[in-house]
Amino acid sequence: MRRRRTVVPLSASLLSASLLSVALAGFVPAVGAAPPPKIAITETAAFDAAAVAPFAGDYADVYAYLDKQGAHNLAQLQRWVRQPSISAQNKGITQMAELLRADLQQLGFRDTALVPTTGHPGVYGYYDAGAEHTLVVYMMYDVQPIEPTGWKVDAFAGSLVDEPGLGKVLMARGATNQKGPQRAFLNALDAVIKTRGKPPVNLIVLAEGEEELGSPHYPEVVAKYADTLRKADGVFFPMNTQDRDGSASMFLGVKGILYMELEAKGNPTSGGPQRAEVHGSLAAKLDSPSWRLVQALATLTGPDGEIAVPGYRDAIRAPNREEQQLFNGVVRDRAEPAKQLESLGAARWKNGRDYRAATAAELFDTTLNIDGLVAGYTGEGVKTILPHRAVAKVDSRLVPNQTPDQALALIRKRLDDQGFQDIEIRKLSGYPPAQTSVQAPLTQAALSVYRKYGQTPPVAPRIAGSAPYYVFTQTLGLPMISGGLGHGSGAHAPNEYMVVEPAKGSKIAGLAQVERFYVDLLYSLSDALKQPKK
Amino acid sequence: MRRRRTVVPLSASLLSASLLSVALAGFVPAVGAAPPPKIAITETAAFDAAAVAPFAGDYADVYAYLDKQGAHNLAQLQRWVRQPSISAQNKGITQMAELLRADLQQLGFRDTALVPTTGHPGVYGYYDAGAEHTLVVYMMYDVQPIEPTGWKVDAFAGSLVDEPGLGKVLMARGATNQKGPQRAFLNALDAVIKTRGKPPVNLIVLAEGEEELGSPHYPEVVAKYADTLRKADGVFFPMNTQDRDGSASMFLGVKGILYMELEAKGNPTSGGPQRAEVHGSLAAKLDSPSWRLVQALATLTGPDGEIAVPGYRDAIRAPNREEQQLFNGVVRDRAEPAKQLESLGAARWKNGRDYRAATAAELFDTTLNIDGLVAGYTGEGVKTILPHRAVAKVDSRLVPNQTPDQALALIRKRLDDQGFQDIEIRKLSGYPPAQTSVQAPLTQAALSVYRKYGQTPPVAPRIAGSAPYYVFTQTLGLPMISGGLGHGSGAHAPNEYMVVEPAKGSKIAGLAQVERFYVDLLYSLSDALKQPKK
Repeated sequence: MRRRRTVVPLSASLLSASLLSVALAGFVPAVGAAPPPKIAITETAAFDAAAVAPFAGDYADVYAYLDKQGAHNLAQLQRWVRQPSISAQNKGITQMAELLRADLQQLGFRDTALVPTTGHPGVYGYYDAGAEHTLVVYMMYDVQPIEPTGWKVDAFAGSLVDEPGLGKVLMARGATNQKGPQRAFLNALDAVIKTRGKPPVNLIVLAEGEEELGSPHYPEVVAKYADTLRKADGVFFPMNTQDRDGSASMFLGVKGILYMELEAKGNPTSGGPQRAEVHGSLAAKLDSPSWRLVQALATLTGPDGEIAVPGYRDAIRAPNREEQQLFNGVVRDRAEPAKQLESLGAARWKNGRDYRAATAAELFDTTLNIDGLVAGYTGEGVKTILPHRAVAKVDSRLVPNQTPDQALALIRKRLDDQGFQDIEIRKLSGYPPAQTSVQAPLTQAALSVYRKYGQTPPVAPRIAGSAPYYVFTQTLGLPMISGGLGHGSGAHAPNEYMVVEPAKGSKIAGLAQVERFYVDLLYSLSDALKQPKK
Repeated sequence: MRRRRTVVPLSASLLSASLLSVALAGFVPAVGAAPPPKIAITETAAFDAAAVAPFAGDYADVYAYLDKQGAHNLAQLQRWVRQPSISAQNKGITQMAELLRADLQQLGFRDTALVPTTGHPGVYGYYDAGAEHTLVVYMMYDVQPIEPTGWKVDAFAGSLVDEPGLGKVLMARGATNQKGPQRAFLNALDAVIKTRGKPPVNLIVLAEGEEELGSPHYPEVVAKYADTLRKADGVFFPMNTQDRDGSASMFLGVKGILYMELEAKGNPTSGGPQRAEVHGSLAAKLDSPSWRLVQALATLTGPDGEIAVPGYRDAIRAPNREEQQLFNGVVRDRAEPAKQLESLGAARWKNGRDYRAATAAELFDTTLNIDGLVAGYTGEGVKTILPHRAVAKVDSRLVPNQTPDQALALIRKRLDDQGFQDIEIRKLSGYPPAQTSVQAPLTQAALSVYRKYGQTPPVAPRIAGSAPYYVFTQTLGLPMISGGLGHGSGAHAPNEYMVVEPAKGSKIAGLAQVERFYVDLLYSLSDALKQPKK
């Protein structure tokens, strides 16, 4: 795992806005609760993006081209979301990979390939701009499965919907996660090439079709092009970062992930039916794999859902000075806590913690989450059976210096110590976290473009979510950032959308503005790549 | 609830075959285990059906008619199972109710009706044979839902399948539970009427379409005909009672049931997302209804799945003398324990109990069983969400003197005491147990018919399963028995079947023999109804 410096020199942009010295006040543990995370925030200074000078570049001819191409560019996004590409169910995966490759070829990527893996294929494209430096663009072309209920439109129809208070949105699976922003970036690249002949930097697009599966085979894609990739200078991932009120935010890293299935089934040692479900009345004399799973799971948390696996947080390093100052900035600059809760549909932060403690957990703590539970009869009404198997899908988000293998071993040990050797753990995915410094030229370049567009984004050291950035930051040693204007929501949920034509008075960027930002970013990052790497 | 006499005078048929004086030896509790059930068996005598004289009736003309009608009678069973009637999903319910009513009319039931309830309709039919006595025939016309995988044939095609070692079977949902034996009984009745002009007793068929839902509205059907039913003399329920090797068994009662859904969902007091699932990474700062449900469920049993609800067994009365002697007979006469385990697909009895203790629990103990569990994403592969709700379907089988309301209150109290007031319990069904004495004339009459067909059935005081017999035994005060030759399996599971043409050398009755048994039983029960009720 990449080691971060524990002391980061911060610029004059740091403000002593935070007067809080210890986080996690306001947390009242429930009776019998597991210990809450200990995250010491001793820094009082707070990072402030306002100190970064706005990007000075101006590309009026490119912007004008984008404005002219409005309808065409929107249709490009619709074309992408209309192609299903559900990695978990292998629906439309090959078609989407081929569609992406064809788009790259059409843009002028000279060298393109579908990259076979032991899972879904990757997509590779190289654009030779004859430049000294090279930017890698990470993309994911897969999407989450569709929820059986809750969608207002066909999830793959590419519908344009008028949403009160937002404006016209593209409502579709993948609209914001991640087809919308990725295709918007390619629209921007198209405009640059059409007006200026070529981009200011060589580009490598390296896409995967298994991000939503935890990127199990992306390392194979990276390995195939490792020599080429090592000569590159940085990595970028297009992303909508504006929230509903138009404020953009930035993050510098991701958590890692461990994704498992825990299964209890009938077996010789702990009993229960082994072949098939049996009549429910047999619970009088046969063991129940479902109770077994419930009891095993219950040893992993306290009654309050806090992690109860001994040593699970031992590896976690304390937030360093840069991270603490970024945290202080985030707490100061983000939307009101009540609004954040409202947007999540929740009435409180976890176990009644205060906002500061909740945010500290979001940025610095690990998790143990039940993504799914299933056993026996799950339909309407009554069916009396004793199921022969029960399965939980569980994920854990990993922060520095956790690793998937350590985390898995601790969970296995906990179950074994509690007598649940019969519970099978299947690891479906696992990779470590990743991070880039706020001082990296790439980060500063991105911030300067936000500043040009009137944004002063809070900068988080990482997001609570996961992406396989480690293949770049750790395997290849490259700085990696993500960003962009644009607003979307509903990733992994019904009615996913991206705003394409904001309501009057909204600070959300419309599609043309999103693309304009990417044009500037391309030039700004290109400049940054010429600076020595940090 | 009906109180049973605690001392039952037993006839000379009792043998002192059992030398065991205390049950539940051989149970080694696991560390931290909940206490096992305490079931004291102090009687050493064992009931033996061999002492019952074989039924002397002979109805050669009726048997001959049945033999002639073989193909037609099999087609009648196929016609019934081809009509889906899944109560839990309201599939084909009305059609099946109408089909049953039409069949009764065709048989000569003068007075028939669909009986509207607040749920699925009942079916009523009265056959006036001009007799002094009246037998009620309980029927259920609904079936269990279909399992999504595991069926070798279309569950509603009425397929005839050659099963190695068994012979020709009707493989379909409802084949044995309960359409097969019920229609076979009507075939027998048809033969009696065609050859003898009328049955020896007046008949009331009172069917329901919600047995598989826990019979929530059957009391409404009974209430409508209560005056007529009270004048009846006993109740019969046709049933396949032969096991795979041809041995028949009999039981005298059923357990009651409490069927619940336990649900955790996002709410203001224990937190979590309330509107919809959210991204799994939010587990860092939002509460999880899924963990909440797991932790709540885990307080209901020990790690070994034994009931841990305080006082849950307090109401249960000890097995009386008749029940103990029936138990001793069952333990002596049933198939080898190893064969029973094999047929259930299990390697051991619950928590390693010995066979005697497992059988005692089957007959005399309550249960707490997870029928289904569901939360979040249950499909293939990886999806990272924090579900906003999680549901468990849980049933409890009730023995004398438990009641559904007492049981529910104890579970509610347990959850409340452990801090889980936020877990919602929805009662989907609940009714008390029911029982008829082995000394009842109806029971003795049925045993005599078994004896005529070379069977000496073990007689259990009850089965582990549930049926709403209480409406007859408790509400109306009528004796009720069930029985029949015939073998089927797979109730509530894939590939449900009933043997219609047994393999050569099999002791299982073929369809014509099943019907012949019902002819004899009709006459035998008719005789018994003339005796004073016990």
